[in-house]
Amino acid sequence: MNKKISTESYKGVRDFYPEDMFVEKFIWNTWRTVCERFGYVEYNASILEPAELYKAKSGEEIVNEQTYTFTDRGDREVTLRPEMTPTVARMVAGKQHDLIFPLRWFSIPNLFRYEKPQRGRLREHWQLNVDMFGVDSGEADMEILSVAHAIMRQFGAQENDFSIRINSRKLMQDVYAHFKLNEDQSYKVSKIIDKKDKIPADVFLASLTEVMGDTAGQLTDILSSNERLLDTLGKDNKNVVALLNTIETLEKSGIKNLEFNPTLMRGFDYYTGMVFEVFDTNTENPRSVFGGGRYDDLLDIFDARKVPAVGFGAGDVTIRDFLETHKLLPAYKATTDIYICTLGAEFAEHARELADILRKPSEKYPYGLNVALDLSGKKIGDQIKIASKQSIPFTLVVGSDEIASGLYPVKNLSDGVEKKVKVEEVADVVRK
Amino acid sequence: MNKKISTESYKGVRDFYPEDMFVEKFIWNTWRTVCERFGYVEYNASILEPAELYKAKSGEEIVNEQTYTFTDRGDREVTLRPEMTPTVARMVAGKQHDLIFPLRWFSIPNLFRYEKPQRGRLREHWQLNVDMFGVDSGEADMEILSVAHAIMRQFGAQENDFSIRINSRKLMQDVYAHFKLNEDQSYKVSKIIDKKDKIPADVFLASLTEVMGDTAGQLTDILSSNERLLDTLGKDNKNVVALLNTIETLEKSGIKNLEFNPTLMRGFDYYTGMVFEVFDTNTENPRSVFGGGRYDDLLDIFDARKVPAVGFGAGDVTIRDFLETHKLLPAYKATTDIYICTLGAEFAEHARELADILRKPSEKYPYGLNVALDLSGKKIGDQIKIASKQSIPFTLVVGSDEIASGLYPVKNLSDGVEKKVKVEEVADVVRK
Repeated sequence: MNKKISTESYKGVRDFYPEDMFVEKFIWNTWRTVCERFGYVEYNASILEPAELYKAKSGEEIVNEQTYTFTDRGDREVTLRPEMTPTVARMVAGKQHDLIFPLRWFSIPNLFRYEKPQRGRLREHWQLNVDMFGVDSGEADMEILSVAHAIMRQFGAQENDFSIRINSRKLMQDVYAHFKLNEDQSYKVSKIIDKKDKIPADVFLASLTEVMGDTAGQLTDILSSNERLLDTLGKDNKNVVALLNTIETLEKSGIKNLEFNPTLMRGFDYYTGMVFEVFDTNTENPRSVFGGGRYDDLLDIFDARKVPAVGFGAGDVTIRDFLETHKLLPAYKATTDIYICTLGAEFAEHARELADILRKPSEKYPYGLNVALDLSGKKIGDQIKIASKQSIPFTLVVGSDEIASGLYPVKNLSDGVEKKVKVEEVADVVRK
Repeated sequence: MNKKISTESYKGVRDFYPEDMFVEKFIWNTWRTVCERFGYVEYNASILEPAELYKAKSGEEIVNEQTYTFTDRGDREVTLRPEMTPTVARMVAGKQHDLIFPLRWFSIPNLFRYEKPQRGRLREHWQLNVDMFGVDSGEADMEILSVAHAIMRQFGAQENDFSIRINSRKLMQDVYAHFKLNEDQSYKVSKIIDKKDKIPADVFLASLTEVMGDTAGQLTDILSSNERLLDTLGKDNKNVVALLNTIETLEKSGIKNLEFNPTLMRGFDYYTGMVFEVFDTNTENPRSVFGGGRYDDLLDIFDARKVPAVGFGAGDVTIRDFLETHKLLPAYKATTDIYICTLGAEFAEHARELADILRKPSEKYPYGLNVALDLSGKKIGDQIKIASKQSIPFTLVVGSDEIASGLYPVKNLSDGVEKKVKVEEVADVVRK
């Protein structure tokens, strides 16, 4: 009656079949493990936000062209959140008087951007957000950098697979002040520096010259040598001291791949201090994996007192690309431990009873086994094929001999080794 | 410069502060544990779906007034999914030739309905979806019922806290046939039966009479007695046999709270066989917690071969109400195990090193501890207050005496008991 419809998903978003979901959960669980290890607690919110949340932040009347914004039937303008920071700022501001600071919070929200789908940029992606609210010291900056580093290590990345580039917006303000740039010039110069690695050297110089005249050459010069830049500001400049202290302290704690990079800017205007970026050092595809920084003024858009904040966001698509490039993605394995096959429909009840026993937590195995029962009614060989193709690691066969002897053949499908064991020994074989 | 904006969330959706997220994760993890225990694997998809997915299903040209549907800038009609079943049907149909059946799949998606927010009905909620594809036998129905039952038990519900009401759409077709009702009459009668418990007896009878005339009394009569109804159809009616077999088999496996209820209909038109509902037996607030059933024809809307399916959906808001009513919600506890306090800024480095050691997995504790460092710079008493108010169970204090002796006071904040231990013994105290 109905015309047949397409099985395609909406453009630029992903379906997560169990194999895809496995990778996604590997990423989320790694994020979650590290964040919790550092004492961060999880929060969440709806993807629907009042559109004014983003208007207020950008200071413009029109919400960015790149967001999904629509008017609901109650005439409210709603946006599918394009990033989590405005949401978490709203939540912190909203309960500012009840919350116990400092807060260590993380979340793994899905975010929406209305843009042309391309490698690393989808219309929907998931993003780890890690933030500390209420501490304005360098200690907090260092901890956030440590969390970023620990995440990469937990994924299995070696120290030389990535570097952490670090800069300070405050230190750069001192650089602009050294060249006597006004606020407008400083802003423009920062945007040009942000593009330095993507444009030819002559275009870079010409763009700078347009804003700051003849001194552009000097700035280009000091940007190319960290030592000269730090010398220019003076070793006792407090922002230089803070930056060097951060790098030195973290090196002592074993983080060896941190590097000062004065051309690292990060896109968001709301950063006020330390900014950083985890950078893939793969020579074939060097690029940013994720980053963040300090943003002490964001709660100003609400009627709230100032709360210093530092944090970062890491997207699932970019991290997945990194893990694929560096061959760090684990192979798919079903969460199911064992598949019970039967030699005939008359053994169904016994198989069900067996499954119930194996699923029960015991003293020795507090989690019990994850057990699937064959209900296909197929021949035994085909039942085993189902288990194998669904990446279930073990099978167990039930027939009259097995019921009579109380010994069940448990087969490891990866090496074909079969053992005949009692019910109470099945978990030993599977969990070994 | 900007006018201050509200910290309220969008109407009818929820912010999940860590305490709320704790409850949400308790619910999700319980769902996940039980589904995996029965061999189900997790999938997911985007919340954005082509609007035609829902048009096709309802057979109407206009998408239901209760969905969020908007037109994107590429002139595509997009819907925020109001339920997961069309999405999973789309995914299964789309890879029908690659997937290995039977499939046991589950997901915990968020769903959107544009309706007036009220108790148990929000604009966004999360819902467990559990489905088996590719088995048309009663064995599959029984397993799905077992999963529903196991979930309630895993939440801590006792057998008499809930009942599982079961019916069969096929059996009801036999009832309609007994009264010689045509298709249109059958449909109307089913909708009236669905409302039986919510309308007065005389209104019920009058409505039935309007559709089926004088035989309405007889139907009302047999609906009030399961025995009479089954006798009317005959004990050898195959749908009666199937239903009684399901109930009897599950009773044998220990599920004692299953009851046949011929007035149980379930709203969705797509059900084709067994339907069920988990019912809260609390006398003060008796109501449906969740339910599902068999739907063998849903993949027809795609260009796909028939795939029998059975499953259910369980919403987080209703389950949370159930858990609150029955006092089954656990008290909030931070995921953080221990909070390290310092007796002065000069001990920060030592505290950081200590945290690093405690976080590392060991042979004995393969997960390491979740450790937060105090960065507040407050007095020691206030540091401990922060830990206590953030529901972190233990504190550890670092000062010159502790560093000199290598013995750190670890305090259990719930009973105030303090023990002085070496670094390598901290996990023993915390994990005990």
